[in-house]
Amino acid sequence: MPEFRYNSAIDDWIIIATERAKRPEDFSTNKSYAASGDSSANCPFCGGREAKTPAETFAIRGPGTAPNTAGWQVRVIPNAFPALKADDEPKKSNDPAGFMKMGGFGIHEVIIESPAHDKIIANMDLSHVEKIFAAYRQRYISLSEDPRVKSIILFKNHGHNAGTSLSHPHSQIIALPVVPSIIKSRMGTAKDYFDEHKSCVYCDMIRMEKTEKQRIISETDNFIAFVPYAARFPFETWVLPKDHASNFKTITEKQCTELAGISKTALEKLFRGVNNPDFNFAIYSAPCQETKTDPFHWNLKIFPRITTAAGFELGSGIIINTMVPETAAKHLQEV
Amino acid sequence: MPEFRYNSAIDDWIIIATERAKRPEDFSTNKSYAASGDSSANCPFCGGREAKTPAETFAIRGPGTAPNTAGWQVRVIPNAFPALKADDEPKKSNDPAGFMKMGGFGIHEVIIESPAHDKIIANMDLSHVEKIFAAYRQRYISLSEDPRVKSIILFKNHGHNAGTSLSHPHSQIIALPVVPSIIKSRMGTAKDYFDEHKSCVYCDMIRMEKTEKQRIISETDNFIAFVPYAARFPFETWVLPKDHASNFKTITEKQCTELAGISKTALEKLFRGVNNPDFNFAIYSAPCQETKTDPFHWNLKIFPRITTAAGFELGSGIIINTMVPETAAKHLQEV
Repeated sequence: MPEFRYNSAIDDWIIIATERAKRPEDFSTNKSYAASGDSSANCPFCGGREAKTPAETFAIRGPGTAPNTAGWQVRVIPNAFPALKADDEPKKSNDPAGFMKMGGFGIHEVIIESPAHDKIIANMDLSHVEKIFAAYRQRYISLSEDPRVKSIILFKNHGHNAGTSLSHPHSQIIALPVVPSIIKSRMGTAKDYFDEHKSCVYCDMIRMEKTEKQRIISETDNFIAFVPYAARFPFETWVLPKDHASNFKTITEKQCTELAGISKTALEKLFRGVNNPDFNFAIYSAPCQETKTDPFHWNLKIFPRITTAAGFELGSGIIINTMVPETAAKHLQEV
Repeated sequence: MPEFRYNSAIDDWIIIATERAKRPEDFSTNKSYAASGDSSANCPFCGGREAKTPAETFAIRGPGTAPNTAGWQVRVIPNAFPALKADDEPKKSNDPAGFMKMGGFGIHEVIIESPAHDKIIANMDLSHVEKIFAAYRQRYISLSEDPRVKSIILFKNHGHNAGTSLSHPHSQIIALPVVPSIIKSRMGTAKDYFDEHKSCVYCDMIRMEKTEKQRIISETDNFIAFVPYAARFPFETWVLPKDHASNFKTITEKQCTELAGISKTALEKLFRGVNNPDFNFAIYSAPCQETKTDPFHWNLKIFPRITTAAGFELGSGIIINTMVPETAAKHLQEV
């Protein structure tokens, strides 16, 4: 069974999950990846192979089709190699020497983005991408209602350098019984900034990016996508709601449709302008219990994985970006 | 010229350094690496090619040999593709929109570990490894005396997955005009722990690891190496001085010789037990100005790079380790 262990020197929980090591391709870090060159012959995520996966928790499917049969457009299932397990309890305990652990409770789901093996967000119809984001919203809101859940991480790994083990396009969602240190830290930064400036650091960043204009990739009524002034990675892109909102769970259906559109635009520009790079994206949100008026501002960050963090980055946390953010933005704008 | 840019939402500096993109092999993340299979034909770090590098700032060399000629055992030179430059000034300024930047001051040196192209710490004579660590100590102390320097990161990248661009064994040292957020955060954690427990969190961790015994890899009079209870990566190893010391610059010559020995043991076990994995190590130390009584405890961490951080790790900061730390330690103990 997975478990949480607390590392007191770094003040964070670590998940020990040996089941994860059994995933396809895991530990083979040098294998190359091709979104469409991979065989679909044995892929459990392909349409028509519903019996090869755990039973679905949610699906957007054609009228009259039964759960766990073909006919779906987007399908959500429990992860067969979960990092955490829903039937465990988040109960803390100390061993005799004093080390602290906690039961590996958590909910780990896979959002299969399409029944087709080689369709990726960058080259799907927008109407289909909207369905994927509708599934994100449904699962996020549903999981946030579980009183054991303190925070939710929604993310996508695209390509081998981004940690993917199965190439059939999918996203993942992990509901946690703790608030990760990185979220606490980002919330602390937002609160300190708010106390000093009486404004949200992200709202101010949007305002400043709009003043300078040169790093904006796309803008809609309610969202903006830009390469931040102090980007950490070449082509790193942030997508933010323009109106202040701390928690992704408050997003409306209409806003979520708009988010799907601007995210697809950003990913399509990356796909076409940077030759389908490996990437991750993740949604950063205030913890489930926080209210809308919290100084934190939820956001979706896209991280192209075309550089490798080395000892300096690990040792200092400071990232060396070898591409000027304005250059990256100009390249994406011109796609 | 490189520059620092401040990211106000993540409260940290980012280094924008386009010169780094010109390094050999950079951006070719799929290329495989072999410590001894790489050609030394054009390697600028090999003995006898001293004219191909910037002039040395320090060297341990045979009696009667002149600087920047052959005859050295360990040689320190300015990095030809520096992330930061010694002739810049750490002067902060705001652009009209309000974004903050700082001149890219910093000192970036390369410690060439041997004139031989294919000798690595794991298979060198101990007496030679002691010379490498003596060079670490000399450079660390010397750089910490520069009043512009606030903190120093000493690190090593071994293998392509660890971010190496040149396979000739070398370490690097970067002296920074700022204290990185990660160091501030670790110091904050140590201080909070000290305020609550009246003891050092690292000293307590050593005591607890010694009580349980099962994760200890090696121990000497003054140092201990172990896989921590809540390790983040398979075979992650921490090396700590047993007596409390916050700053690496206070290490004595004798202690440094001992550190060389225990570090070589840990790296040799990794080399032999895990088939020469790619890895990074980095020394975490209190900032240059801190005194010996600071609650932080300096340490050297070895990170094997056999797993890939994915969207969950980027989004939550929480690491999923697929190997139980006791299993990893047992494997290394048996080497």
